[in-house]
Amino acid sequence: MKLYSYFRSSASYRVRIALNLKGLPYDTVPIHLLRNGGEQLTSEYRKLNPDGLVPALVADSPDDTSALTQSLAIIEYLDEVHPQRPLLPESAIDKAYVRGIALSIACDIHPLNNLRVLRYLVRELKVSEDDKNAWYRHWCEQGLAALEQTVSNDRRAGRFCYGDAPTLADCCLVPQIANAQRLNCDLLGMPTLMRINEACLALDAFAHASPAMQPDAE
Amino acid sequence: MKLYSYFRSSASYRVRIALNLKGLPYDTVPIHLLRNGGEQLTSEYRKLNPDGLVPALVADSPDDTSALTQSLAIIEYLDEVHPQRPLLPESAIDKAYVRGIALSIACDIHPLNNLRVLRYLVRELKVSEDDKNAWYRHWCEQGLAALEQTVSNDRRAGRFCYGDAPTLADCCLVPQIANAQRLNCDLLGMPTLMRINEACLALDAFAHASPAMQPDAE
Repeated sequence: MKLYSYFRSSASYRVRIALNLKGLPYDTVPIHLLRNGGEQLTSEYRKLNPDGLVPALVADSPDDTSALTQSLAIIEYLDEVHPQRPLLPESAIDKAYVRGIALSIACDIHPLNNLRVLRYLVRELKVSEDDKNAWYRHWCEQGLAALEQTVSNDRRAGRFCYGDAPTLADCCLVPQIANAQRLNCDLLGMPTLMRINEACLALDAFAHASPAMQPDAE
Repeated sequence: MKLYSYFRSSASYRVRIALNLKGLPYDTVPIHLLRNGGEQLTSEYRKLNPDGLVPALVADSPDDTSALTQSLAIIEYLDEVHPQRPLLPESAIDKAYVRGIALSIACDIHPLNNLRVLRYLVRELKVSEDDKNAWYRHWCEQGLAALEQTVSNDRRAGRFCYGDAPTLADCCLVPQIANAQRLNCDLLGMPTLMRINEACLALDAFAHASPAMQPDAE
């Protein structure tokens, strides 16, 4: 499998964690989001992923060699095709809990803090560096605070967001916390999320997926 | 089932379509996003959904009466528990295609055009009405243009985004097109998406889920 990835992209990071948790080998194809005007925007890459975003996974499936896009869709695909170490619970209601956490990060926090969005704020809307950082922290802190409440009040949370094995929810949580820490967000009121983050990072699958460990890390 | 919904919320709209496609009866509990300082932000509603967002679904499941949140997690839950008229294809690779479309709307277009985000632009960043509308159109047009390319080039597209029956992808597409039209986005270059949108709206399940048909419509 080939993963088109940028070391610092948290959506790529999610998929790297899932691949590692499943024990699936893959080759990284680095797509640098800042160099050459953004390698994700070249016509060559856009043939693979018209969205012009990372990650994309070429799974070498026998029936299709086109690229899969959208980190959550990729992880669900991997979970179905490689059922070892499942990343979703058995029951529908528990799946909804895990997917709900993943989506609250992927839909309500991360898109607002994405590189292209921060760039638009600065370049098109002439927002100051301070206001840009305040924007980042606002959505990140507000989203994670709600998530802290959800997870800390749910009897299904254990060592990880759901029980005692990592799931799709943890694949999304850890990259988001990494981003939050990089931008100095206030995480003091989130002991449950931080405890889970630490439990995740103690596992090789998470540690080896981190931005600093990637071949394209700077 | 009880759906906490706002007539104009496109995330609520997605779930209404899915409920209708499945033929599942439900009661609407209107949550007005603008009145009373935002009814989604009351402590009562936040007990149900700490995110302070709509929709939320109380599914009256025998093993859990708490609310499900996140529109895509809710629809996946409904699809698993009520398998009639499936909203996802059989094969893993085709599921990834359908989920990829849904997520490109739910993660890369809609969050940037959400009410709370537009409000932040105006109230905190003092962005002008014109610049706010340009922001809206930028993300909407850019995202839908990429989606047009994906869907128009994929042999799996048919009358709908995937084949000849509606899926999760169409549940997300139609509300996003409705938003785009309301904000006068340029949709001329998107004949495939517009054709699919029309095919969807010809079905009662979609038409009856539209904002104008809701009990809380204004």
